[in-house]
Amino acid sequence: MSQHRIVETSLRVRYAETDAMGVVYHANYLVWFEVGRGDYFRTYGQDYGEWENAGYLLPVSEVHARFHAPARYGELITVRTWIEETRSRSVTLGYEVRSTASQQRLVTGWTKHICMDREGRACRLPDEMIHAMAAS
Amino acid sequence: MSQHRIVETSLRVRYAETDAMGVVYHANYLVWFEVGRGDYFRTYGQDYGEWENAGYLLPVSEVHARFHAPARYGELITVRTWIEETRSRSVTLGYEVRSTASQQRLVTGWTKHICMDREGRACRLPDEMIHAMAAS
Amino acid sequence: MSQHRIVETSLRVRYAETDAMGVVYHANYLVWFEVGRGDYFRTYGQDYGEWENAGYLLPVSEVHARFHAPARYGELITVRTWIEETRSRSVTLGYEVRSTASQQRLVTGWTKHICMDREGRACRLPDEMIHAMAAS
Amino acid sequence: MSQHRIVETSLRVRYAETDAMGVVYHANYLVWFEVGRGDYFRTYGQDYGEWENAGYLLPVSEVHARFHAPARYGELITVRTWIEETRSRSVTLGYEVRSTASQQRLVTGWTKHICMDREGRACRLPDEMIHAMAAS
Repeated sequence: MSQHRIVETSLRVRYAETDAMGVVYHANYLVWFEVGRGDYFRTYGQDYGEWENAGYLLPVSEVHARFHAPARYGELITVRTWIEETRSRSVTLGYEVRSTASQQRLVTGWTKHICMDREGRACRLPDEMIHAMAAS
Repeated sequence: MSQHRIVETSLRVRYAETDAMGVVYHANYLVWFEVGRGDYFRTYGQDYGEWENAGYLLPVSEVHARFHAPARYGELITVRTWIEETRSRSVTLGYEVRSTASQQRLVTGWTKHICMDREGRACRLPDEMIHAMAAS
Repeated sequence: MSQHRIVETSLRVRYAETDAMGVVYHANYLVWFEVGRGDYFRTYGQDYGEWENAGYLLPVSEVHARFHAPARYGELITVRTWIEETRSRSVTLGYEVRSTASQQRLVTGWTKHICMDREGRACRLPDEMIHAMAAS
Repeated sequence: MSQHRIVETSLRVRYAETDAMGVVYHANYLVWFEVGRGDYFRTYGQDYGEWENAGYLLPVSEVHARFHAPARYGELITVRTWIEETRSRSVTLGYEVRSTASQQRLVTGWTKHICMDREGRACRLPDEMIHAMAAS
């Protein structure tokens, strides 16, 4: 990953995110991916909400995640986010979730996003978005 | 409650809804209130989504809930929903959540909703909504 | 898929499951997979909660999903669930999510689960679980 | 409120927390109350998870919230948390949620918690918890 620009996000596990196994419910790691992605865009592009206001949506078209070890209530978590690949109409981001204290790797995964307009038609990523991604 | 029209909704506890105490996370009962409310409107008025399409939103302006006993994964649940009060610009619904098998009362509560248009301005409930509610 | 036993689950989209794009937030489809999985086990094995009570946990170790088209508030949804593969220590389930009315395919995916005991050690799937799966 | 010790928590609105109205889904503010409560305990008592490890649970027995104005994706939020009242077997916390930038008040509310042991029996708050609360 050394060739990637990486953005690190810190968060603390919420009780709402745990389940009856006493650990974080698996689907909630995808929410953490989203939090990491938002921070990535805010750092190297612009706020994702601004892109939506400008008429560009980036819905998730595909997701993959591996759950290596569980996170628990109150634990501090680091989410590392980077761009895996940019195409004219899609972008793929990679993620790694670690326990901040132990640096144990908890979850790895990626999400693919297609660019859509407000009418739900696939469209090219806006130039400034490609530009921001390319530099990654 | 005998004077109220009541709509009963059945649902089964999802693993996603539990937390590390091994029971349903308290905020998720508010989601069940929403499910009950949707069924109420669908039964005695029209689908809430249709009201939104027509330009009327009913955001929650106030909520109160008492948690009497916990629900667990896989349990069948009955949500009973009724209209507490209708005013020209707001409506209050009441809820009771029970374990279907034991009929034990788990949660009781109410939500107050104000009528808003797409621009976020308070507005009168549409006539057919008042009509549907009045009959309750 | 004709060689698989398939269990169908019906559910209705909750407002809580939607996001600011006006459609279901992608991570919530994983919750629907979980609902389908629970129904599968209840139909062809036993309630997953019973397995947990007996000391066997089936945490998700890997997930993949493709999002073909969005679901909206109030829509009726069909989740089809089947066993993709059973091994001595893991099981993989497949899912297909459709709009009940239009039969449009919305999401496809799979989850892999490893068998664990209460101490978090990997263990063999219990015989009755293998038996139930094998018949699939 | 000037007589209360107040803990302030900062968070940013997640996309997962929004709904089809384009704003934060009401039940998610209760999750923010939980985040504020966790920070309060961590600041003036001990980590809530530690209390659970010691055998004391503090489930929510009652909640009330008023929703004054909506929060939107990406917005920075301040949650202010304080102790409203401590009794031998229960504690009530108060919350105020504001937009960090505009200081607009978004949500106010309170949660009441009863002290329970692992077997689900009501019990006295542990001394160090009362102590921590009393100083509030």
